[in-house]
Amino acid sequence: MPNTSSMTPNALTGFVSDILAGGGLSRPQAEALARVIVAGERDGCKSHGVYRVEGILRTLKAGKVRGDAVPVLQTGDGAIVRVDAGGGFSNLAFETGLPALVERTRTLGLAALVINDCTHFSALWHEVEALTGHGLAGIAMCPSYATVAPAGGVEPLLGTNPFAFGWPRPGGAPYVFDFATSVVARGEIELYRRSGRELPEGWAVDAQGRPTTDPEAALAGAMLTFGSYKGSAISTMIELLAGTMIDDFTSREALDWLGTTKYAPKHGELILAFDPKRFAGAGSKGNPLDRAEILLDAIVGQGARLPSQRRYTARARSAENGIVLSEQERAELDRLMREGIAGVTE
Amino acid sequence: MPNTSSMTPNALTGFVSDILAGGGLSRPQAEALARVIVAGERDGCKSHGVYRVEGILRTLKAGKVRGDAVPVLQTGDGAIVRVDAGGGFSNLAFETGLPALVERTRTLGLAALVINDCTHFSALWHEVEALTGHGLAGIAMCPSYATVAPAGGVEPLLGTNPFAFGWPRPGGAPYVFDFATSVVARGEIELYRRSGRELPEGWAVDAQGRPTTDPEAALAGAMLTFGSYKGSAISTMIELLAGTMIDDFTSREALDWLGTTKYAPKHGELILAFDPKRFAGAGSKGNPLDRAEILLDAIVGQGARLPSQRRYTARARSAENGIVLSEQERAELDRLMREGIAGVTE
Repeated sequence: MPNTSSMTPNALTGFVSDILAGGGLSRPQAEALARVIVAGERDGCKSHGVYRVEGILRTLKAGKVRGDAVPVLQTGDGAIVRVDAGGGFSNLAFETGLPALVERTRTLGLAALVINDCTHFSALWHEVEALTGHGLAGIAMCPSYATVAPAGGVEPLLGTNPFAFGWPRPGGAPYVFDFATSVVARGEIELYRRSGRELPEGWAVDAQGRPTTDPEAALAGAMLTFGSYKGSAISTMIELLAGTMIDDFTSREALDWLGTTKYAPKHGELILAFDPKRFAGAGSKGNPLDRAEILLDAIVGQGARLPSQRRYTARARSAENGIVLSEQERAELDRLMREGIAGVTE
Repeated sequence: MPNTSSMTPNALTGFVSDILAGGGLSRPQAEALARVIVAGERDGCKSHGVYRVEGILRTLKAGKVRGDAVPVLQTGDGAIVRVDAGGGFSNLAFETGLPALVERTRTLGLAALVINDCTHFSALWHEVEALTGHGLAGIAMCPSYATVAPAGGVEPLLGTNPFAFGWPRPGGAPYVFDFATSVVARGEIELYRRSGRELPEGWAVDAQGRPTTDPEAALAGAMLTFGSYKGSAISTMIELLAGTMIDDFTSREALDWLGTTKYAPKHGELILAFDPKRFAGAGSKGNPLDRAEILLDAIVGQGARLPSQRRYTARARSAENGIVLSEQERAELDRLMREGIAGVTE
């Protein structure tokens, strides 16, 4: 590899895939992961970018994921398409199920993809955006590990439980949001701890369930949900629909199984897909996608941002300049390429 | 009618139905509305209780709803069941579509009910709770009229856009939540205005888009969404899925059509239904409803409330003592019974 700090998305995908395959993942697992990691890096989402490569290999080294799993598609006969990830990463399972989900959604107007028995690694925006590429709208959700207390509660029970939505836009980047149902991600609290700052109020409780602004106490206690009891209700809904309903782990079960938050969590995922053309029926009010543009333009027109605007700006920059990695990031990838799984601390 | 302040739910349903039918609604429309109003009153939800009777008749008198509409069911052949409410109230349309939605969900595992061209009157909890009565989980959502600014914005564009979820619990009241995606309902700000109190910060902006704690300025401006940009994203999703996608009004279009917030709004509604047994597949981790109990018990076990607990407590009280109306409430119903639509100011 040339020793530059800028690479095209394709080159970086190949590089990351080589590192992961060298570390012991099957080539299909490695490639599916690399595509998601590079999409994150390309979009300026550092939290799902190349720094995650080591964590993936750490999870593999600890025996908490099957590196050679082959996802099995069960298309069934209703509105539910199912992929058994076989203990592998979620990404290849999603890619395995996507064509069947798209086909079923076009046939029925509405369909669901259930992913079971996966180690979850993905920003959900990547998946709902994939649906919009087929002209479909989508909702994705999954549990995590139990680090969040329900509103009015004192103990970690819920996960950071992300909720994502995508809507196709004619001739442009889709409307996509993807957020944790906790006030912030756990990594954010870790950043406060490292820099010795106090947390804003309302982010967390300590191990005794008392409100705290001390990051150390917060990490030993529980995070809180966004929007108080409303966010807590949505987070609980995600545990029910994308945990118990799909016959997979809740966030507490995921943490019990793993015993730590050091590795990527194992649980399922639920994705709902909608065909706007089918839902619009006769379409007497006009094309649903065109009518949506009026709404979205009115949001931007009054000076508000659309949720993924920052990502799309970073994406355009990456398209122009390539993906720029810091010296440190590049050095770390080179090291992992050289040392393989032996260079990863468990 | 005996002049007592307590009535059984059935007696009150009959009374409210008589008032609405006397005011000009067809008997089926009147009965469907009465069931929802009395359920609200029974559960201590005054905001959807008997005080709404006059508003319903006012909307009818203004010619903004068809009192004799007969909803038309189109079952189609996919996962989408559709009811054209024919310009009548949403409630009879929902009752018309419910059996087909339940049947389709049992067949496919997942299905949707689209209600079009209705004047919307309902707490959505009533509808998701109806689904749980059939052992199904459900999500319901709809726009409203544009009174809420998107996060970072300055003008009313979104509605208070309610989002509701229901999950069946074996041998007990279901897990149900139903909330506005605005910080509070508009009526709450009206209460602050009447009592001359300042609003908490973060509830609203004035007509120039500046943050305000003055209720008067807030009512002339726009409300804000719960949970900042996350609530705003969910509210926007509701406009897209339950507005443009289903070929019905967005909140702005609903307000444009009506020209006022004085009458009940006209728009559509989207209800998703899930069959947990179908989603659980082989169910290797156990019955999904039983596993959900572990989660819900863990919420209550740490001292947190479940979302509808207050309603269920009020419901138990009503079952014991009947539904208790104040003298004023009772007198108002008696007056509307006597005077009919003539006694309603437009």
